[in-house]
Order: sequence, then structure tokens, then C-alpha cells
Amino acid sequence: HKLLANKIVEVAEKIKKLGQDDPRRIVHSLKVGLALTLVSLFYYIQPLYDRIGENLIWAVMTVVLVFEFSVGATLGKGLNRMIATFSSGALGYGVHYLATLAGEKGEPIVLGFFVVIIAATVTFVRFFPTMKTRYDYGLLIFILTFTLVSVSSYREDKVLRMAHQRVTTIIMGSFIAIVTCICIRPVWIGEELQNLVANNIEKLGNFLQEFSGEYFKISEDGQPLSDKPFLQGYKSLLTSKNTEETMANLARWELWHYRFGFCHPWKQYVKIGTLTRQCAYKIDALNNYLNSKIQTLSEFGSKIQDPSTEICSESGKALRELASTVKKMNQPTSVNAHIENLKTASEYLKFMLDTYHLKDANLQDIIPSAEVALTLIDVVPCIVKIADAVHE
Amino acid sequence: HKLLANKIVEVAEKIKKLGQDDPRRIVHSLKVGLALTLVSLFYYIQPLYDRIGENLIWAVMTVVLVFEFSVGATLGKGLNRMIATFSSGALGYGVHYLATLAGEKGEPIVLGFFVVIIAATVTFVRFFPTMKTRYDYGLLIFILTFTLVSVSSYREDKVLRMAHQRVTTIIMGSFIAIVTCICIRPVWIGEELQNLVANNIEKLGNFLQEFSGEYFKISEDGQPLSDKPFLQGYKSLLTSKNTEETMANLARWELWHYRFGFCHPWKQYVKIGTLTRQCAYKIDALNNYLNSKIQTLSEFGSKIQDPSTEICSESGKALRELASTVKKMNQPTSVNAHIENLKTASEYLKFMLDTYHLKDANLQDIIPSAEVALTLIDVVPCIVKIADAVHE
Repeated sequence: HKLLANKIVEVAEKIKKLGQDDPRRIVHSLKVGLALTLVSLFYYIQPLYDRIGENLIWAVMTVVLVFEFSVGATLGKGLNRMIATFSSGALGYGVHYLATLAGEKGEPIVLGFFVVIIAATVTFVRFFPTMKTRYDYGLLIFILTFTLVSVSSYREDKVLRMAHQRVTTIIMGSFIAIVTCICIRPVWIGEELQNLVANNIEKLGNFLQEFSGEYFKISEDGQPLSDKPFLQGYKSLLTSKNTEETMANLARWELWHYRFGFCHPWKQYVKIGTLTRQCAYKIDALNNYLNSKIQTLSEFGSKIQDPSTEICSESGKALRELASTVKKMNQPTSVNAHIENLKTASEYLKFMLDTYHLKDANLQDIIPSAEVALTLIDVVPCIVKIADAVHE
Repeated sequence: HKLLANKIVEVAEKIKKLGQDDPRRIVHSLKVGLALTLVSLFYYIQPLYDRIGENLIWAVMTVVLVFEFSVGATLGKGLNRMIATFSSGALGYGVHYLATLAGEKGEPIVLGFFVVIIAATVTFVRFFPTMKTRYDYGLLIFILTFTLVSVSSYREDKVLRMAHQRVTTIIMGSFIAIVTCICIRPVWIGEELQNLVANNIEKLGNFLQEFSGEYFKISEDGQPLSDKPFLQGYKSLLTSKNTEETMANLARWELWHYRFGFCHPWKQYVKIGTLTRQCAYKIDALNNYLNSKIQTLSEFGSKIQDPSTEICSESGKALRELASTVKKMNQPTSVNAHIENLKTASEYLKFMLDTYHLKDANLQDIIPSAEVALTLIDVVPCIVKIADAVHE
């Protein structure tokens, strides 16, 4: 009994955590329930039911299948479903008409022939990357509706009426889903993307601001760094490419947006995301130095400490301000100043490396610090690129 | 006219290329057509149609929705759909029974109440990451069937018969899809994953084998390297995490496999994939040195040339053999020998760096070569880890 009780408490805590992490999930679940209630009203209220009849089942299905978490995804699926149903219904009716010309015996053969040809062709089209990203669901529904209409036309006399009703109910269902999704606490995927990109930039900024302090502290302590969470934040960036691209594709369905109007900077976000990721690879190298190279600080190391710290703090500030620029869409005020400081510090560090007189220092002592310095110098142009992309 | 003709030729070439890249896509398209023909036979043949009737429409839908490119995905969707339809159909019937107890006026209220509660709960459950990866489609179908059965039970008297027919036709459709998918030229996603992992390891091997030659050639020429394709192969690895995880999840549906039987090394593949990716980040750093640091080879550079070349060629050989081990599932023969050589070369290079006497060489000259050397030394434990994981 205790085991069961523990298990229940555990699950309850998981549920609570899931809800607390993102309360919009609970709102979304209730929205789905509401949309389904709305569509089932057509069943319960006699005058509405009389008009449409048992084909209402398609409207219910549409609501379940089309309703997604974000407005972009719901709109994309809804439009795909409506357009695909309409066009394939028309095509199905055309094929039905052709098949009736072939006589009673020829009809199934003609129907079967067209089903194979069209289903195979559309299935193949789904492999095109450009089609897959935006119209995959529509193509699936196209095959589905075409097969349904043309195959069942063999048994059903009122094909036109069936096709017409299917189109009407599906449009009805899509509208209910889209309206519920947009009107009650909408989740705009474009905004999600914007926040994701901004948070990613901020994570890099946080890392860089902490890095120099941690690095020179270790070097002094000679102690390895236990993985600190604020230094690990950037790791999710390394593999975020697919997520960002999917979000940008969905965001394109949100044709209108209350903040951007009709101009969509989604491509720009993907570009900023890519640049941020390239920068994150370099940061990953810096993080490796934190974890692997433990030694006391050489004389050389303490010499580069000041310009390195300067680079880290300036780039941290610049990145944080860029992140808030992306998030709040205001004009950055002091980014240019930070970047100028950054360039100066980077030039100075380069100059130091060039002119440092080696005497007979041990190479193994110098290299790790020099690597950090060179990687930091490498990070600077990345940040400049991100800043340029943000300004656009 | 010419513009149109050009456009057509262009599209035709794209189609041809898509088919040539992976001829299994054409086979898959034809398989979908065949499965649809099989299921529509039930419509055309009178005795079969008499048994099931117009509910056959669910079987057609199931084939279209369940049929996927790989066996794993088809099985996953088919099983999800069958189990979800069965359980939610039963639940829907139970709710219908409860609702009839509430009298004519109370019936829609009870039905509506349960639809909201169950749809909202299941929608929320879909957010659990563990549920999302494997049972997302099943949960969607659960909401769908439950709503359909309970809502339409208000108008339909023979609810039990309807639920029963829906379950039968969906099982029928799933079976047709699964059998067609497995029997004709099946694409096992487990094998795809295996090949992907093996190819990724091979790409790293190819890069390393070419790297030292290219690096020391540039250093001698003083010319930057135009991006050569064999040096870019590894780039796709950097962001392949999601793909690999999705594939491993789908592969788990392929319960039985003619080569592995019932034991599934999918988790192992994901582990090898992760290690390979970590190695790829280091390789990315090496590639940056190729593109950015152009200078003539210093005396120090030529000193490390031999051990570096040794490390590159040995690790290239080791990785290539590991790749073929993963692909062909045979015991590796000479990997251990290569790894021993690798360790020796790496120790020697470390020793050289430790003991190199700096005199008054320019630091800026030495650093780039030293960085390459250190990164190569860093790559060695990665390769050892990959080898260990492959041996498991």
C-alpha cells in the first residue's frame, strides 16, 4: 500500500511540476475540451443537427486533429486540411464521373487505377523537402479524402452531396479550432521563437560573464570546477537547429501578428540562431578548458588575465543587451560601445601575444592560457556578426 | 513557352534526383498505392462489402494515416491506433451507458461533461515527455474515438455496434498497412539508425585522414583552403541529436529483427552517436584552424608534423574500422592495434610539447600549431570512448 501511495504522490508531483513549468499547458488542455463541447453542441441541438446530420462526425474529428498548442501550428493544419479536402474532393468527384462512363464492370477498375496512381504520386511528392516542411499534413489529407470520395462513390449514389458535406463539416471544424485557439490566451509560435533566440543569446552572455572569473579562480586554486549550472546553460544551443527551423516554419502560418503586422522577421531569427550556435561551439571549447586543464596560473597566465577578463565582461554585457533587444524589440543603446571596447581589448590581447617574450618558459605552461586567449579573440567576430544580424 | 519548358525540365530533374538518391522512396509510394487497392477491394467485392458495410471508410482512413516509410513507424502508429481505439471505444460506451441513466434532458450534459474532462486530461498527458515520444499518436486517437463514440451515441441507437465496427475496421486497416509495409521491401528504421551511426563515425575518420595532409600543405603554401567537400562531411553530425533520438524511439517498435532477434542495441547506438558528436565538436575546432590560421610553417610546426600525421592517420584508420564494425556487426580485428599506436603517438606528441625549448621563437608562430597538436591529443580519448562503446 505504501508503495502505491508513494507512486501516486510521485506522479502527482510530476503533474504539478509540468503545470507549473508552463501554465499555458493547462489552458491549452481546457481549450481543447471547450472546442469539443462547442462542436458537440451541433449534435445536441435539434435544429442544428437537422441541417447537417451524421456527417458532423467529420467536424468533431477535425477539431481533435487540427487543434495544436500554438496558433501557427493550428492555422497551418487547419488551412492545409481545408484546402486539401476541397481540392481532393473535387478531383474525387471528377474521377467518379469518369468511372461511371466506363460501365458497371469497368468502374472498379478505373477507380482502382486512379487511386493507385494518385496515392503513389502524392506519397512521392511528400518526400520533397520543401513540401514536407509546410504541406505534409495537407498532402496526407489529400490522399485520404481522394481515396474516401472515389472509393465510396462506388457504393454511394449521392457522391456530390457526400463530398460537399465533408468539405462543409471540415471547414466548420477547422474554424471552431482556429477561433478557439486564437481567441483564448493564444500562444504565438513567432513569439516563442523570438524568446528562444533571445534566451539563447542571453545564455552565451551569462557564460562569458562568469567564465573569466571561474577560469582564473581555478587556475589559482588548482581545483577542478564542479559543473555549475550557469556554465552549462549554453549546452542546449548546440543541438537546437531543428527546433528553431520547425518553429520558424510554423511561424510563417501566422500571417498577421499584432506586433509585427505583415512583415515577418522569421528568417532573420533563424539566421541569428545559426550565428548564436556557431558562437556556442566556440564557447564549448572554452568550457572544455575549464574542466580539463587544471594547473596553477603561470606568469604568462596572469599577464593575459586583465584583457581576457575585459573581453569576457564586455562581450557578456553586449550579448545580454542584444538579447533584450531581440526580446523587447527596442533599439539597443550601448551595444556599439561595448563592441568597440571588445574590439580594443581583443586587439590588445593579440598584441600581447605577438610581443610576449618567451625567454625559457615552459611551453606546456603557456599553451592552455594562450588557447583560452585565442578562443576569446575568436569569439569576438562571432559576437559582432550576431550584433549585425540583430540590427537588421 | 521556353520558360515553362525549362521549368518542367527542372522539376523533372528534381524528381529524378529524389528517386535516384533513394529508390526506396519510389517503392514506398507504390506500396501505399497497393495497400489502398487492397483495402478498396472490400468495397468492390459484394460479399465482403455486405459483411462490413459503409464503416469500411475507417479501414481506408487507417491505411492512409498509419502507413509510414519505415517498419518501426508503421508498427508504432498501427499499434497505437488499435489499442487507443479499442480502449477509448470501451470507455465511450461506458459513458454512453451512464448518460442514458440521467434521462433525456440530462444526457447531453453528462456527455458534455465527460468529453471536456477526458479530452482535457488526455491533452495534458500528451505534454509528458515520456508519453510524447512514444504514445503521442495513440493519445490523439484516444481523444478522437472517445469523443466520436460518446457524442454520436446521443443520436445513434446502436452504439455498441458502431463502436465494435470502428474497432474491427481499424484493426483491419492497420493489419493491411503493417503487412504490406513488412512484406514488400521493408525499410527497418533500426538498420537506418545503425547505418547512420556507422556513416557518422566514418565521416570523422575521413576527415582525420585528410586533415593532417591538408593542414601541413596549407601551412607550406600559405594559401587558404577552398572548402573541400570531404572536409565538410562531418558538419551534419553537429546537429544530428534529434534525428538519432527519434530514430531510436521508432526502432523500439520493431520488436523483432532478423539480425538482432529480441535484443535491441538501440540505446547503445544513441550512446555511440552522442560520443561521436562530442568528437565532432573537437573536429569542428580543427576545421576552423584549417580555414582561419594561414601562415607559413614554423620550425616548431615542422617538428610536430610527424607525430600529428601519425595521430591523424591512425585515428582515421581506427574510426573507419569501427564504422565497418558497426555496419557489418563483425568483430573488429585491428582496431586495438591502431588505438595502441594512437596512444603512443599522442604520448610522444605530449612529451615533445613538454620538452620543446622555446628559445626566443615568436609565440604567435607557435600557438596555431600547438593548438592543433593539443586538439589532436584531445581527440584521442574521444576515439577510445567510441571504441569502448562499439565493443559493448
